[in-house]
Amino acid sequence: MRDSDVRVEAEVFAVARRGKEAARTLATAPSSLKDAALQALADALVASSEEIVVANAQDIARERAAGMSEGLLDRLALSPERITAIAEALRDVAALPDPVGDVVLGRTLPNGLVLRQVRVPMGVVGMIYEARPNVTVDAAGLALKSGNAVILRGGAAAACSNEAIVRVLRKALVAQGLPADLIQTVDPWGRPGGIALMRARGLVDVLIPRGGAGLIQTVVTESLVPVIETGVGNCHIYVDASADLNKALDIVMNAKTQRVGVCNALETLLVSTAIAEDFLPRVLLALADAGVTLHGDQFTQDAAPAGITVISATDDDWATEYLAPELAIGVVDTLDEAIEHIRQYSSGHTEAILTSDLAASERFTAEVDAAAVLVNASTRFTDGGEFGLGAEIGISTQKLHARGPMGLDALTTTKWVVIGQGNVRT
Amino acid sequence: MRDSDVRVEAEVFAVARRGKEAARTLATAPSSLKDAALQALADALVASSEEIVVANAQDIARERAAGMSEGLLDRLALSPERITAIAEALRDVAALPDPVGDVVLGRTLPNGLVLRQVRVPMGVVGMIYEARPNVTVDAAGLALKSGNAVILRGGAAAACSNEAIVRVLRKALVAQGLPADLIQTVDPWGRPGGIALMRARGLVDVLIPRGGAGLIQTVVTESLVPVIETGVGNCHIYVDASADLNKALDIVMNAKTQRVGVCNALETLLVSTAIAEDFLPRVLLALADAGVTLHGDQFTQDAAPAGITVISATDDDWATEYLAPELAIGVVDTLDEAIEHIRQYSSGHTEAILTSDLAASERFTAEVDAAAVLVNASTRFTDGGEFGLGAEIGISTQKLHARGPMGLDALTTTKWVVIGQGNVRT
Repeated sequence: MRDSDVRVEAEVFAVARRGKEAARTLATAPSSLKDAALQALADALVASSEEIVVANAQDIARERAAGMSEGLLDRLALSPERITAIAEALRDVAALPDPVGDVVLGRTLPNGLVLRQVRVPMGVVGMIYEARPNVTVDAAGLALKSGNAVILRGGAAAACSNEAIVRVLRKALVAQGLPADLIQTVDPWGRPGGIALMRARGLVDVLIPRGGAGLIQTVVTESLVPVIETGVGNCHIYVDASADLNKALDIVMNAKTQRVGVCNALETLLVSTAIAEDFLPRVLLALADAGVTLHGDQFTQDAAPAGITVISATDDDWATEYLAPELAIGVVDTLDEAIEHIRQYSSGHTEAILTSDLAASERFTAEVDAAAVLVNASTRFTDGGEFGLGAEIGISTQKLHARGPMGLDALTTTKWVVIGQGNVRT
Repeated sequence: MRDSDVRVEAEVFAVARRGKEAARTLATAPSSLKDAALQALADALVASSEEIVVANAQDIARERAAGMSEGLLDRLALSPERITAIAEALRDVAALPDPVGDVVLGRTLPNGLVLRQVRVPMGVVGMIYEARPNVTVDAAGLALKSGNAVILRGGAAAACSNEAIVRVLRKALVAQGLPADLIQTVDPWGRPGGIALMRARGLVDVLIPRGGAGLIQTVVTESLVPVIETGVGNCHIYVDASADLNKALDIVMNAKTQRVGVCNALETLLVSTAIAEDFLPRVLLALADAGVTLHGDQFTQDAAPAGITVISATDDDWATEYLAPELAIGVVDTLDEAIEHIRQYSSGHTEAILTSDLAASERFTAEVDAAAVLVNASTRFTDGGEFGLGAEIGISTQKLHARGPMGLDALTTTKWVVIGQGNVRT
């Protein structure tokens, strides 16, 4: 490492140590105290709207000059109304049940030992994310509610916004008698700060990357801190021979077009040969009408109604998470072929079958290996809010610790508490 | 990477792919099939005792010539009786409840979606471990029961034993109509094979290192595959002012001397000033009688009865997991001081307080951050068998996924299964 990197690492490790120290005060805090703090953070954000909007304007001006697209600029932009909405989300988190203290398992052992497995905070949660400044508030709120300190590494594009938000939140913590270091950022150290955060094993308990595939891959491969991989969703829908085709049309359109830039949007449609000649023309027409660019296999191209363009699908198309109004479409002879295709290209996020056949439904849900497997429903339902988790820190596509939408529980661990009466092992 | 390492990596990745393929047959297998296979593996081990003992004798002869200690040679040695005991452990695993298919959470959402979070196998479990050949069988048995394929990397010292055991187990799988590749080893590729296993992200779902601190640190820092860190236990007992000193003496002796080479053995004893003059002479005498080498602070040295040697404890002593008849002893003025000392030196495995004071018990269990926190019981109880988990794949000292003794559940993940009636998101 270069000298400058060594210095950054020492400073970031000190940040992590302060976070661990601050988290101690929260580990045993009652829910009422944490909920009051969340309300205070929400109040402070609203009261400081002007200051935050001014800082945000600097980010917007710089990024616009640098050529950021209007779509991304819109995701970056903050207004008093948006800040109020972000603050409301904090109040929603305050209203959620506190996972800390839940007894996951409890029993009395034959030797009289009383055993409890109790949910406790992780300690220090690291968050590495891209442009959207609302993630700054969401992450801080969810960490606080679950009794953790948070260390943030936001994107350079939102640097001024995040700096202002973190300043406001820290001040509000202090006003509540809580340590400011429950919410810290390593943004002042730029990219080397993020790298140091990934190396802070033993000081940071878990690191959650949120953003594009590149960011997530970097964190997953570079981090010494345990990581929860999130995000990439190359989601499939398989329309089985027995599917209700009217419902199937609605579901496919919803999954592909309701919101295109999200990880639970549809990216590949597989259609059973048995209904392909009936279903494909209808669905291709509806998709084209909605402005979706179509990539298809030979069968699909042949089935396209006059005037509808279907580009020949390449192997890349099957593997791509478009995050755009674009869809790959293929025809399969059997359920086995559909499962095999999904097995080859799935990112393990969300896979769906549309069918009226019980055996097909059972086989698909049992054999497809993904965080969420849906029957007769849009892939867009894979979401913490929709699943009733109340809040979402991300969607895990790994199998360790958490899989699928992650609520507050994912930011906790457990501790075994054992009460004896002088017991020794024989 | 060198050309030879590239070749090894390609071969080990092919092993992992075969494991993933084999695991598919098990993912949806009923418990009865897996349990019958476990019984068949046990039968095969007993029937092949002679062949395994012959292979083991080669390991023993080589390691004895290389100067391995008699203690370690004893842990490496297999006899027909030991093989029968190892086979019995497989039958015990067969008798455990199958975690696969458990519904962790189930609810019907307001929109009619029926949501279930179901326990499913991880897929491919990697195990990197040192000399004891019984781990080969334990790991294979626990992986099979939980529906996973296992890839083993054993220690060079047990190479012939492990090779013979794996050969016997694979043959028994085939005789049961199951794929041999449910149990594979990368030992033929030696150390580069182990390294390749750590790089098989996406092919291996979790890697569990079991062995000394050096092995575990290597895996934790080198692996791209998600790791569950196990093992290091720098365990403390704090004898509070209000403790029953007769029970305390029994517990300390049990925790330190019942078995010294294990991760839940006592390594540091902290004694409240209030009872130190009464308790220390008794416990020091008993420990010295039991052949325990004593390291103590000034107070402890001064309190030692005539003829009992207490070496001056260094900072290293407080940090060391002796895994030997050796103990560090210190005196603290308050519960806070005890918690502070533990906070500084704990490896997060097992910490205990001996007390009759409710507030002290509550504070200790709430504030000490470890996998297991015990009151009035020996640290030796932190164990999957003792906790009633039925079997143990290791003791996790990390917070992600599993913490403390890990049973079959730790080798599973969950899948969200969602059944709709044509639902779309609005």
